[in-house]
Amino acid sequence: MSKGKLYGIGVGPGDPELLTLKAKRVIESSPILAKPVKKSGEESVAFTIIRPVVDLSKVEVVDLLFGMTGDDADYWEFGRKAGEQVIGYLSRGMDVALITLGDVSIYSTFMYMEQYVRSQGYDTEIIPGIPAFCGGAAKARVPLTLGDQCLAVVPSAKDNPMLEEALEKFDNVVVMKAGKSVGKVLDMLKEKGYGPECVTAVSNVGMPDEYVGMADPDRPYGYFTTLIVKKSFKKVCRWRRCRPSTSPPGDVW
Amino acid sequence: MSKGKLYGIGVGPGDPELLTLKAKRVIESSPILAKPVKKSGEESVAFTIIRPVVDLSKVEVVDLLFGMTGDDADYWEFGRKAGEQVIGYLSRGMDVALITLGDVSIYSTFMYMEQYVRSQGYDTEIIPGIPAFCGGAAKARVPLTLGDQCLAVVPSAKDNPMLEEALEKFDNVVVMKAGKSVGKVLDMLKEKGYGPECVTAVSNVGMPDEYVGMADPDRPYGYFTTLIVKKSFKKVCRWRRCRPSTSPPGDVW
Repeated sequence: MSKGKLYGIGVGPGDPELLTLKAKRVIESSPILAKPVKKSGEESVAFTIIRPVVDLSKVEVVDLLFGMTGDDADYWEFGRKAGEQVIGYLSRGMDVALITLGDVSIYSTFMYMEQYVRSQGYDTEIIPGIPAFCGGAAKARVPLTLGDQCLAVVPSAKDNPMLEEALEKFDNVVVMKAGKSVGKVLDMLKEKGYGPECVTAVSNVGMPDEYVGMADPDRPYGYFTTLIVKKSFKKVCRWRRCRPSTSPPGDVW
Repeated sequence: MSKGKLYGIGVGPGDPELLTLKAKRVIESSPILAKPVKKSGEESVAFTIIRPVVDLSKVEVVDLLFGMTGDDADYWEFGRKAGEQVIGYLSRGMDVALITLGDVSIYSTFMYMEQYVRSQGYDTEIIPGIPAFCGGAAKARVPLTLGDQCLAVVPSAKDNPMLEEALEKFDNVVVMKAGKSVGKVLDMLKEKGYGPECVTAVSNVGMPDEYVGMADPDRPYGYFTTLIVKKSFKKVCRWRRCRPSTSPPGDVW
């Protein structure tokens, strides 16, 4: 009997229609769909996303336990345990489709498990998804990079020195998981001479409290908040969406 | 008569199946599909990608001229001209689906045109796509970021000082359009104490000369080459793909 294959599938930032054709095909044709959860019976955001657009009539859905302690050493152990669970299916010739929010290569714990499963002699394949920051930029109709520009992607962890570094050196910065850090980011930018017009917040897209607009420190933001910092916004617009304009030729963004 | 709407659609890095469900639906239901070309009659890579997976029987395909001079001021003028061409359809109530390689927010000239079209009172919507670097990371089965890590995305332009800056300060760096710069990047990293095992090249995926593996300065690379630099590769692996291992717990990537 041939061995099954593990697929790691990015389901995109939230809109079910942002699933790729390949993700849909592989999910529907794999006998096992694995949804990672922190504890058994918990809701999976990735599963909620795909539910309306995939046919699961021939698919068994299983929970895959994966803790979220924030500690890299733990993750190797979680990856090994979850990997063993997955190998239980692969060894019986069943493919496993594992779903993860956004893109697989951007902050997904799937990569720990993938490493273990591959080390045990099983084949794996990654199907990329739309990362949250690309979904956010699209929603805000803001370019992340143009021409020869650079981009930094920084998670807003407590006391992360790279946040300051990125805001200092890069013209375009995406701050991930920024719900609690909007004020901090605005303060850091203010010290460098950039106002709130340079910061677009994209928060809880598709949820009742969705917000897409200039970052305002006085409103609350949910967990799924991405900030898009563009220093060039300072030059010609107070807030681009208030001032759609093509002129002057030059750096509107 | 109601006005048409302009859709900017990212078609992903190359595999037709990495088109999103939404991109497929909007392309098939828009009367006009616009493919940007540098000169009339030219092949469009984005169009070649979608061709096998969309039904264009009810769609008129038009070329949209958009030069590539590398000069930002020119791009505003190209954007205005192409925008006027698009408005010719929108003003007659026809939606226009414009396709672009990868993701719309990452180095796409669509954003210049979008700004003009919106300024003229027409509605626009952006449908994000898989960026080339996410497609490349998936192909190489390498994570771009884990935990609290940061990522820098830098195009390999001649004399771009941010390349040195990013390689100095960031643990994870994506170098775009790197076909001619593999040797330069390896040299810069060597000065900082990092060998070629830290650099994965993803080149011309899906083409006959596809290459995914450790960067080798002695082979030629095509235009569509992305380098994924991960300094942590140095710590425990000579080259990760030769040494799949889960132990020790710690920073394998």
